[in-house]
Amino acid sequence: MKIICSKTSLLKGVNTVLKAVPSKTTMPILECILIDATLGKIKFTANDMELGIETTVDGSIQEKGIVALDAKIFSEIVRKLPENEVTIETDAKLNTTITCEKAKFNIPGQSGDDFTGLPAVEKNESITLTQFTLKEVIRQTIFSIAANENNKMMTGELFEVNGSLLKVVSLDGHRISIRKVELKENFGNIKVVVPGKTLTEVSKILSGETDDDVRIFFTTNHIVFEFEETIVVSRLIEGEYFRIDQMLSSDYETKITVNKRELLSCIDRATLLVKEGDKKPIIIHITDGSMELKINSQIGSMKEDIDIEKEGKDILIGFNPRFLMDALRVIDDETVDIYLVNPKAPCFIRDDKETYTYLILPVNFTA
Amino acid sequence: MKIICSKTSLLKGVNTVLKAVPSKTTMPILECILIDATLGKIKFTANDMELGIETTVDGSIQEKGIVALDAKIFSEIVRKLPENEVTIETDAKLNTTITCEKAKFNIPGQSGDDFTGLPAVEKNESITLTQFTLKEVIRQTIFSIAANENNKMMTGELFEVNGSLLKVVSLDGHRISIRKVELKENFGNIKVVVPGKTLTEVSKILSGETDDDVRIFFTTNHIVFEFEETIVVSRLIEGEYFRIDQMLSSDYETKITVNKRELLSCIDRATLLVKEGDKKPIIIHITDGSMELKINSQIGSMKEDIDIEKEGKDILIGFNPRFLMDALRVIDDETVDIYLVNPKAPCFIRDDKETYTYLILPVNFTA
Repeated sequence: MKIICSKTSLLKGVNTVLKAVPSKTTMPILECILIDATLGKIKFTANDMELGIETTVDGSIQEKGIVALDAKIFSEIVRKLPENEVTIETDAKLNTTITCEKAKFNIPGQSGDDFTGLPAVEKNESITLTQFTLKEVIRQTIFSIAANENNKMMTGELFEVNGSLLKVVSLDGHRISIRKVELKENFGNIKVVVPGKTLTEVSKILSGETDDDVRIFFTTNHIVFEFEETIVVSRLIEGEYFRIDQMLSSDYETKITVNKRELLSCIDRATLLVKEGDKKPIIIHITDGSMELKINSQIGSMKEDIDIEKEGKDILIGFNPRFLMDALRVIDDETVDIYLVNPKAPCFIRDDKETYTYLILPVNFTA
Repeated sequence: MKIICSKTSLLKGVNTVLKAVPSKTTMPILECILIDATLGKIKFTANDMELGIETTVDGSIQEKGIVALDAKIFSEIVRKLPENEVTIETDAKLNTTITCEKAKFNIPGQSGDDFTGLPAVEKNESITLTQFTLKEVIRQTIFSIAANENNKMMTGELFEVNGSLLKVVSLDGHRISIRKVELKENFGNIKVVVPGKTLTEVSKILSGETDDDVRIFFTTNHIVFEFEETIVVSRLIEGEYFRIDQMLSSDYETKITVNKRELLSCIDRATLLVKEGDKKPIIIHITDGSMELKINSQIGSMKEDIDIEKEGKDILIGFNPRFLMDALRVIDDETVDIYLVNPKAPCFIRDDKETYTYLILPVNFTA
């Protein structure tokens, strides 16, 4: 094999597929990037068996061939090469020479025979979003998946399509995040659970431009993201997702409207009195026109008033401050509406159109 | 005590003295910042008994007093306050209230009685440098002090004044870094060894401006840096520094002139084939007009040619690539001169005026 690509194209390709290279594995071949120049295009592939990424790299093929190179070494070499044309050439033993200007690297290659390519997926139903929207939707929900694997289902996100509405849901037992997006066309009923890791990695590769589209295909076992020169295939999480409808309610006893940044800074300040791992709640006292936030810990105490608009009853309620911050951080609106029922019931942060809904359970506290 | 300062002044003061707060200590009082508003000025002090820093903070004193506050908590509170006036007030039990806009923090304070202030140092001999120069000199030598304490002397830097010349030296057994600075006035003979940690911390506080000066006082046991509103006092390392003159020589068999950036990038590329902790040398072959750099490791091999100007003999020599990079990184010149004698003798990287000299020992290798 002999190919010539610019350093820039190589680096883009390497960085794209690198997201599917596992950091730890017992199968050395998975630590490789497959360079396939057998079919007239230069294709890079990485695949950790859960998540596979394939991308086409600009360049010219001088001699057809295929080789698997250690992803870490290859990516580091590419990163440090001068900004110029790079030649990658393999000999009969798959020893690979990477040349750029006067620099010449030699690293061993492996045969592509053991490499598992992307699964062939039947692409039927698909929806189209802008890369911007998909990236935003992921950012605005990914924080409330569960980190540990005790409940596999909670480590993923529900992607549900109903007619022209896409609903994305994540939850971890203490809170639920929901984002709704209007699609341009009508579709049937789709309901899949996508691994959080897949969404995190996809989000990193997406350009985030409003002009660039991404197509999403759904099959029984896989989800496929197609954009620009790249294809991402991921396994789905099997099983039925949690029924959340019964937990959602539009009734409330208290509604407040508050400046988002002010509330966020206040909670951020308060939490510096809480040591990592300590579960001190922030206590919120809502009265007419004012919201008092208080925190008490071994380190000290903090109290702050924030001006609000209020409808309904006064209420005294406690929350895990981090859960409030996580939700407030991803909301782009200047002011937010918060709906409350009583000190034992969840609060809802949502906009009028319900493009976003954040449900957060309160915590007990001793006043 | 009751004082009012802007958040900005407070933050500047806190960040300055924080450098002398030890991260680990068995004496809790050392983890505090002392706020002293007894003498008409607001003074912040921190002191880990090796290094002490004192700075004056702008603000008004409403009620005289003194209190020691936990440095970590106090600095975090100040950092997260809104940009406005901050009131710090203590009651009879030294409970301290920090108020800014509607935010109100309460933390316990400690009496200043147990706090050890800066040692009273007799300020006789002093030299004056610009903050820019001192910061540069530290940056250009600090990398070659020894990291571990096996040889205490190697963890410091020699500051030697001779007439109007300041010479700063660091060494770690494999290399020596020397920077010389012309002073504006003539001084006697001064020779002290300053702890590396002191220099690192001082360097972080220095503005780095060419318009701002710093005065340095020397006593038998201490060095004092005075600049703007800040005083830094540090213990010296006791004992006599290494005699390095016999290791320096201006004889050479080979002299090369090379583009600094090109050489640095090339060595940087080569080292990605060397795993952390592995001691693979980079092998340099100097011939007329060309310098070939080669590295071989388990991971692979790399070879690159660089154009040079050369005087004298051809030579084949091996170096620890990191030592070459450390020196090249801090040199601001576009091209550097490297002087070599033979494969067993150190190389010298130095400019004509010897404002900088970097001696690096070669390593054995099997060609």
